[in-house]
Amino acid sequence: MAEKVRIGIVGYGNLGRGAELAVEKNPDMELAGIFTRRDPNTIQTATNANVYCQDNIRSFQDKLDVLILCGGSASDLPEMSPELARLFPIVDSYDNHAKIPDHYKKVNQAAEEAGKLAIISAGWDPGLFSLNRLLGEIVIPDGGTHTFWGKGLSQGHSEAVRRVEGVKKGVQYTVPMEEILEDARNGKGEDLTAAERHKRVCYIVADEKDHARIEEEIKTMPDYFAPYDTTVHFIDEETFDSEHQKMRHGGFVIRSGNSSKAHKQAMEFSLTLESNPEFTASVLVAYARAAYHLHKKGETGAKTPFDIPFSAMTHKTSAEIMKDLL
Amino acid sequence: MAEKVRIGIVGYGNLGRGAELAVEKNPDMELAGIFTRRDPNTIQTATNANVYCQDNIRSFQDKLDVLILCGGSASDLPEMSPELARLFPIVDSYDNHAKIPDHYKKVNQAAEEAGKLAIISAGWDPGLFSLNRLLGEIVIPDGGTHTFWGKGLSQGHSEAVRRVEGVKKGVQYTVPMEEILEDARNGKGEDLTAAERHKRVCYIVADEKDHARIEEEIKTMPDYFAPYDTTVHFIDEETFDSEHQKMRHGGFVIRSGNSSKAHKQAMEFSLTLESNPEFTASVLVAYARAAYHLHKKGETGAKTPFDIPFSAMTHKTSAEIMKDLL
Repeated sequence: MAEKVRIGIVGYGNLGRGAELAVEKNPDMELAGIFTRRDPNTIQTATNANVYCQDNIRSFQDKLDVLILCGGSASDLPEMSPELARLFPIVDSYDNHAKIPDHYKKVNQAAEEAGKLAIISAGWDPGLFSLNRLLGEIVIPDGGTHTFWGKGLSQGHSEAVRRVEGVKKGVQYTVPMEEILEDARNGKGEDLTAAERHKRVCYIVADEKDHARIEEEIKTMPDYFAPYDTTVHFIDEETFDSEHQKMRHGGFVIRSGNSSKAHKQAMEFSLTLESNPEFTASVLVAYARAAYHLHKKGETGAKTPFDIPFSAMTHKTSAEIMKDLL
Repeated sequence: MAEKVRIGIVGYGNLGRGAELAVEKNPDMELAGIFTRRDPNTIQTATNANVYCQDNIRSFQDKLDVLILCGGSASDLPEMSPELARLFPIVDSYDNHAKIPDHYKKVNQAAEEAGKLAIISAGWDPGLFSLNRLLGEIVIPDGGTHTFWGKGLSQGHSEAVRRVEGVKKGVQYTVPMEEILEDARNGKGEDLTAAERHKRVCYIVADEKDHARIEEEIKTMPDYFAPYDTTVHFIDEETFDSEHQKMRHGGFVIRSGNSSKAHKQAMEFSLTLESNPEFTASVLVAYARAAYHLHKKGETGAKTPFDIPFSAMTHKTSAEIMKDLL
């Protein structure tokens, strides 16, 4: 067996922990270390990995092959990605859609100048969903694309319901409307707003005397809930603890259109995830492998999932995948 | 606008006709000609394209950029693909899964020797389904993959039912069993046989006096129907003509598994096609674009869809797809 790809993880929140678990599932990889801005001694990892102070990362240039950046898109990655792309091949999951071109530019410049390779926006949206939006346009050029998110736990909306007085525990899921999904498969509804395509479903633990008021306050909350079809379920604490602790997410990319006047065609890609951060991390780990292999071949600069052939993301040989999967 | 990619189509059956229609849907392409072994004067094309004798194809080396080979996998492509890969960049939809490695070897040698590029097995299965089987393994390494075909018109089985005495018109669809699909999404049933995963549904036009015998003969037909859950519907000729003339097909690639002990993840890709040959041809046309662009960049030899980044398959620029679709 070839030498293992040595992975470094930067940042140890839910995504970093997911990356740690994902590296374990890939036999051609080993975790060289986790890098954090916190005190390394305060961090309990899932697999007993080594934790280092992020300030010392420069000294690991001979000790690891690729960095997986697990910071947030709001403030971490805009600085971290260009900075670390000068030192290592990197992957990130930058997901601020409107600012991706700007992020790309900065990371590309840094990586090109250092002769390194960086893959940005490599999660599932942006990432696998983007790939399917592009593929749909390519193979059904005369048609429309519909992206739905959910059933998914929304952090922001869950926090909003928990701020309502009397709410002991609460979560909110965004759920695609089944009938609009069905319309999308038939090429209808591309012009609908997010509010028209999704409903919001809340599960709340609260005293019974507060139920009516809490439901009213949630349903009329401006921006968050008022424009949406919102349902509020009150459940007991035991049910909440056993069924609503997972960071579920997922969604659908549907492309439908016509290959000729007589013939409709539809393509659909969907994800049903019990852990959003663990899945995003699994995708990052796969693109980390691609970054390692393509960089070894001499490729430099920033790339997106659009630029990466799937053969670069697997640890199997071309002969194996041709025989087993083609 | 850049110069258009000049496409040649070899073979003019259902697939060739689909490719002709697909080229029309792609504004960066033009059809240089259709090449046939039949007398060109006997061929009525869908778009009034020029039809030439296949024997003269060598004289078109300066007049077209890529050939789309629309022959069959049984006898046409094993000879045609290596032969024409010496003259032009080509794409084919070779779909004899067991013999793909052998086909690859021959086409690769021919293309390498001539300094040309060839993309083989570029339809939907093999092709887009293969991509999703590979992607599933990559992002959910600890899991199982389930491929289902249908609802799909089966040519061989339709011919078989039409051979039964008294059948005036007849078609057969292969349909995935809904409950097995649901099991697959939950990671169950990977060991089931094709017969256990699919049912066969026939629509037959026949005299009423023959119905019972025909149904019995179909359901007991060895190999074709006997091991399957088979349903036979008798319908009138008018319904048959309006609803059962399309070459419908499609299917599902489902990957499900665990990213950690606590968390299941599932990924699903599906196609619902009203015209199998038109969709296959649309995919071929997209890979023809990739063959053209990658060959221009200096790449040679045989490739499969696994080796082609989606950015090479679109006529849009990297900046456009990053802004609009990532």
